[in-house]
Amino acid sequence: MQIATPYLMFLGDVPDRLAAKTAYGINDWRPEWCVGQLRMEGCAADLGIPDLTLEEAVAKGCRTMVVGVVNAGGVLPEHWVTEIVAALRSGLDVASGLHVRLGSIPAIAEAAERHGRALHDVRHTTETFPTGKGTKRPGRRLLTVGTDCSVGKKYTALALERGMRERGFDADFRATGQTGVFISGRGVAIDAVVADFISGAVEWVAPAAEPNHWDLIEGQGSLFHPSFAGVSLGLLHGAQADAFVVCHEPTRTRMRGVEASLPTIQEVIDLTIRCGSLTNPAIRPVGIAVNTQALPEPQARALLSEAEAVHGLPATDPVRFGVEDIVDRIAAEFPA
Amino acid sequence: MQIATPYLMFLGDVPDRLAAKTAYGINDWRPEWCVGQLRMEGCAADLGIPDLTLEEAVAKGCRTMVVGVVNAGGVLPEHWVTEIVAALRSGLDVASGLHVRLGSIPAIAEAAERHGRALHDVRHTTETFPTGKGTKRPGRRLLTVGTDCSVGKKYTALALERGMRERGFDADFRATGQTGVFISGRGVAIDAVVADFISGAVEWVAPAAEPNHWDLIEGQGSLFHPSFAGVSLGLLHGAQADAFVVCHEPTRTRMRGVEASLPTIQEVIDLTIRCGSLTNPAIRPVGIAVNTQALPEPQARALLSEAEAVHGLPATDPVRFGVEDIVDRIAAEFPA
Repeated sequence: MQIATPYLMFLGDVPDRLAAKTAYGINDWRPEWCVGQLRMEGCAADLGIPDLTLEEAVAKGCRTMVVGVVNAGGVLPEHWVTEIVAALRSGLDVASGLHVRLGSIPAIAEAAERHGRALHDVRHTTETFPTGKGTKRPGRRLLTVGTDCSVGKKYTALALERGMRERGFDADFRATGQTGVFISGRGVAIDAVVADFISGAVEWVAPAAEPNHWDLIEGQGSLFHPSFAGVSLGLLHGAQADAFVVCHEPTRTRMRGVEASLPTIQEVIDLTIRCGSLTNPAIRPVGIAVNTQALPEPQARALLSEAEAVHGLPATDPVRFGVEDIVDRIAAEFPA
Repeated sequence: MQIATPYLMFLGDVPDRLAAKTAYGINDWRPEWCVGQLRMEGCAADLGIPDLTLEEAVAKGCRTMVVGVVNAGGVLPEHWVTEIVAALRSGLDVASGLHVRLGSIPAIAEAAERHGRALHDVRHTTETFPTGKGTKRPGRRLLTVGTDCSVGKKYTALALERGMRERGFDADFRATGQTGVFISGRGVAIDAVVADFISGAVEWVAPAAEPNHWDLIEGQGSLFHPSFAGVSLGLLHGAQADAFVVCHEPTRTRMRGVEASLPTIQEVIDLTIRCGSLTNPAIRPVGIAVNTQALPEPQARALLSEAEAVHGLPATDPVRFGVEDIVDRIAAEFPA
């Protein structure tokens, strides 16, 4: 899936900011692609970028209208359909993170056909993948792994992309979830792939590259999550990760959505090395990323210092304190 | 997916026995369900059961016509479509292991609709599953795991079902692959499930049961297979296995379809315990099943004796020497 940029951000008439979470994520990480927003009457979200009509968006070079919002009840409201059809008529592609497929709505499917525009359903890949092969491929790859779901794996990979590029590395974020796909304009929502093709899809997402090129692959789930560990393992094998960063949220007491307790950071390091060595025997940890949002700064710094001492790895909160130390470690461990 | 039994086995006009592999597997393990076969002119396969017309099959109580054959090129031949439509008209459901969905062929979809018959595409589940929860459920479960794909995991689970039932256990085979689904009339081709739902699908396939009931769950792939380990891990977590049997094929030098070398039996035991303990901390191995078909009997017996000595587990070839010793071990380790 390759989505043409830049984007016109469609916010519809969502009742709050949370319903536009994906749109905010895209605008946070790719402000240069978010040329403007299209809001309908009653919309309570605002990305703080120019409000544009479809005609203005096209004139400013927009290529795709992104539906980066969720709709209550899973049914696409009729007045959104009207606006999506109008966007296609104006010459824009439309990309959606909704559960419902754009092409399943006859008016949208017909308009796309008639005007020769592409529809992208980011949650549903249309790509067919071969099964993973596990054959070592050139290029360097880093995977963010986690003690749980939703602990900052996407954010850490994006922060590393930014931090490494600033330091002169040739580095690309590789998306494996829907918000990530919008942010990079490419990728696969890996949890929506048929089970047989998880590692194959990752081999496609992060293909062979120049020897010093880094792919920074967004992790999913956790090897210790009873719902999603299969996805995490296929992702690890497909990534053939040279390096990994363990992401953690210190205030959580149970794994997200289930009764299981959290693994320790050390358990995640050990099992990631053990399983990851199947497709890359040289796999190693290069850092720990902790979401310390819930902690006052002195407590956050103390926690990170302790993690550094215990694990012998740079530990940081990428949002609060940056990723410099992890980039230093990568530079030291993997000389060009 | 619950397929009504007994079956009329449709063999079409396949050119050889291999093209009817699934049908042979069903007839080997469920001869009591295979009332007869329907063969077209030129068919080179023969299950050795009565040739029946559709009318005779219905009169003998058949409920479902099973298309347990593969078609060259992936396109359903027109004369097979005609026969499938006739079966629906006669009052039979139709179940298929083909890649192409029965319902995607208009003549078949219309006939099923008109006559109120069910179509089952065993490779494609229509069931929607919740994500796995990992919450411990009652009943006992054994999973067959492997050093590789195609090393006898289905066969071992079926042999254990038969052997345990003969010894008075309340035991059911649980299918996770297409041939297994036909054999048990129920189950899910787990590798065709969307990645997020692997463990959830297994929780559905092998649900909570009486405390002394055993589910014998057909394994898939291997935790060491770079293409399919994600499926294997989700299966292990969803199974919450109390016990597992390691299946092995001693003459293989590479993992099926890839360059990776095979793990040792001990590596499979160790990683299965380590990962399986996430959803069942009491998981333990109860046997080793080796496919010794390629070895002369004295060599096979020597290999099994050595495996028993090294691992302290009963080792057998289920086809050649039965599963008595493994059933003994299960009885000893898990008293009622």
